[in-house]
Amino acid sequence: MRTTESFEITEEYLDNLRYAIANKNEVIANELIDDLHPADIAEIYEDLDINEAKYLFLLLSNEKAGYVLSELDDNDRDRFLAVLSNEEIATRFLEHMDTDDAADIVADLPKDRKKDILALISDLEQADDIADLLTYDEDTAGGLMAKELITIYNKLTAKECIAEIKRQSEEVDEIYYIYVVDANERLVGTLPLKRLLISNDDTPIDEICDKEIISVTTDVESEEVASIMEKYNLVALPVVDADGRLTGRITIDDVVDVIREDAESDYQKASGLTNDALPSDSVWRLTGARLPWLLIGMAGGIMGARVIGLFEEELQQFASLAFFIPIVGAMGGNAGVQSSAIVVQALASNSLGKIGILASLAKEFMVGSLNAVVISGVLFTYNLFFSPNFALTLTVSSALLIVILVASIMGTLIPMVLDKLDIDPALATGPFITTTNDILGLFVYFTLGHMFFTHF
Amino acid sequence: MRTTESFEITEEYLDNLRYAIANKNEVIANELIDDLHPADIAEIYEDLDINEAKYLFLLLSNEKAGYVLSELDDNDRDRFLAVLSNEEIATRFLEHMDTDDAADIVADLPKDRKKDILALISDLEQADDIADLLTYDEDTAGGLMAKELITIYNKLTAKECIAEIKRQSEEVDEIYYIYVVDANERLVGTLPLKRLLISNDDTPIDEICDKEIISVTTDVESEEVASIMEKYNLVALPVVDADGRLTGRITIDDVVDVIREDAESDYQKASGLTNDALPSDSVWRLTGARLPWLLIGMAGGIMGARVIGLFEEELQQFASLAFFIPIVGAMGGNAGVQSSAIVVQALASNSLGKIGILASLAKEFMVGSLNAVVISGVLFTYNLFFSPNFALTLTVSSALLIVILVASIMGTLIPMVLDKLDIDPALATGPFITTTNDILGLFVYFTLGHMFFTHF
Repeated sequence: MRTTESFEITEEYLDNLRYAIANKNEVIANELIDDLHPADIAEIYEDLDINEAKYLFLLLSNEKAGYVLSELDDNDRDRFLAVLSNEEIATRFLEHMDTDDAADIVADLPKDRKKDILALISDLEQADDIADLLTYDEDTAGGLMAKELITIYNKLTAKECIAEIKRQSEEVDEIYYIYVVDANERLVGTLPLKRLLISNDDTPIDEICDKEIISVTTDVESEEVASIMEKYNLVALPVVDADGRLTGRITIDDVVDVIREDAESDYQKASGLTNDALPSDSVWRLTGARLPWLLIGMAGGIMGARVIGLFEEELQQFASLAFFIPIVGAMGGNAGVQSSAIVVQALASNSLGKIGILASLAKEFMVGSLNAVVISGVLFTYNLFFSPNFALTLTVSSALLIVILVASIMGTLIPMVLDKLDIDPALATGPFITTTNDILGLFVYFTLGHMFFTHF
Repeated sequence: MRTTESFEITEEYLDNLRYAIANKNEVIANELIDDLHPADIAEIYEDLDINEAKYLFLLLSNEKAGYVLSELDDNDRDRFLAVLSNEEIATRFLEHMDTDDAADIVADLPKDRKKDILALISDLEQADDIADLLTYDEDTAGGLMAKELITIYNKLTAKECIAEIKRQSEEVDEIYYIYVVDANERLVGTLPLKRLLISNDDTPIDEICDKEIISVTTDVESEEVASIMEKYNLVALPVVDADGRLTGRITIDDVVDVIREDAESDYQKASGLTNDALPSDSVWRLTGARLPWLLIGMAGGIMGARVIGLFEEELQQFASLAFFIPIVGAMGGNAGVQSSAIVVQALASNSLGKIGILASLAKEFMVGSLNAVVISGVLFTYNLFFSPNFALTLTVSSALLIVILVASIMGTLIPMVLDKLDIDPALATGPFITTTNDILGLFVYFTLGHMFFTHF
């Protein structure tokens, strides 16, 4: 029994495993990995070179090998599939995997391999199911669903239902619900296993199944699927076609990935990354994810330089005006990012409620004002003691007061407006808001500087 | 049958509901909410005022009311519990709720109400369970678990087991696994319902249950719980005490919240928020979440001003040096945030792999160099045409080259070092990295400016 949470890969374990592989000692290699969960074996694979990994992979039972394959991260999997033959992929892995995992793997393969590999799968039903799943966009319910499910005709009794489950259950590992359909294959109910278990033998299924079904059609976006399963606390969600016929089911483990990726994607956008980037990605991919926003930031910087250029004369007279250029930009950026992050997250998790744009802005006006008064007050006090120039003290503090307040309000308003326009509000955060506030802040700062320095 | 994904609250629906409540028309009000899922009712509550909500709440069946209560967001729930009597909370809600949800609600109540309310629960076992759950830290497995589970003695047969499930199952809504214990209440196996269903009546449970149990002890942190359930694709995870005795189970729906909150928390830190903030929070809480980082940013800004102050002479001679102050700070900040976000996310999702610090830095050196060369090359070309001053052109481009490269490497290094020191790496991103890079960038920029302007 394993009471600890997860298996730890030790250096000693790895050395033993490598030694067994180097000596082609199948018995010891098998012993070392036999008891492990596929997810643990996938972790070990990251530490092996590609030939060691391949040797180990071909020792596993077909079913286990398929699980390990689906647990590998994208980079490792690509690297690994590249050294396997089409036949090995088809007969050793795809045939024994859940259809959704198998479809994910085929989808990532080069086009010319896809067809060949599908043709090599000898279980025709499995091949058909995979080919069917490949027709759906991967970011929809169709792309998330698996074909493995237990379907029961609604005219059966509990006893007949259990017999039918015994017949069908070989291909389905985890059953949470039985799906009840009518003569036209239309989904008419769901039945928790527990209820079936505690029913009398001759109870008609139709009487004990839940008729209030929550289901989605194949074209529903995966983010929507995630939010439905999260809202209603579902572990499995049936997927139907346009006519209400049952076509698949989505399980919570696949949706957990969607939820994590969603939340991460907002963070990435806020950090100025154009796509999902991993430290293990290639240099080119990593650069491609980062350069676009850097270029936009640079364009913003050039505009900032032009704004300052308008005030060259003032700068020649009062060089100290330059001292506080960074603080004005930075504080506008920080305040804007903060307020937009709050709105973006609330929009993402549907927790904005019905507050409405006007009420949100009114509140943000108060929060922004409070922050602005504190920051510019503290800086005013500091400058009273340490700055030689009262005009500069006035300029900086009044500029900060305006910039922080305006940046906070813009940070709240822009994501809300983008959301109404069906543009991803997360795009408004990060480099975009920082750059805009930079330019705006500079303009306010120098205009005020011009005023105060000529009057004091 | 509801084939669409979720219930939509229309204005018309709300008007009807408000009208029924205003006229105290129980029949119509009941009709309007009767078929709805508790999660949908919780959403409707956000649109009602507190007295309307209370009226509706007391119409619901006890069990349904408990579900709705657990689906409300924290602010709405607090507002709502404040207008209910201790007795109403105890007998109408807590008694009929899952123990984990009930414990969450009691945990948030003011101290003096907690004891009174627990004493008012007439189901003593339920009161005991809730009180027991309250002893665990809410960020641990103990704080996440519920007491509702089906426990079967390992010496029973499949048939006896089903009879026992019928007896126990009233208090457990969703059963995914049966937990098998020995005579000392120690967890010795798990049994998927499906396997029980397809077994023969006289099969001993001990023979068909899984002995490879993945479980956690009550003190395991909730983030660790989430990563175990995610890694092994579990819908339920048993929790044991230090002696291996079964004490509860954690279900995936509670863990989904942990996963979302984790991912969001990194985003919040990167955005300079000190705590989880919602648009519906009070002005004070929102200000408190934001002011600390703004003050740190301000302190950084003052240091920046001091750095520029060191070069006042150069600025008096060459005012145009000020033009590019913002771009140097901004680009350093952007590049640093990008590289640190990649590392922080990889650390959070355990996808950093075994790459190692040195290899990561070597790669980051290449990515950073590429970005730096492109950005400073583009800006150099721009300035060749539009800037009147070659020394300035040289200064800006060479400063950017250094700043982007250094910021990228620091952005990779700092989170990794913090992680090794067991400090949350997400703290390194956002305002901290932006501010540091600002100061560093200014120093590089002006030092180079001093060099180039005196030599060209």
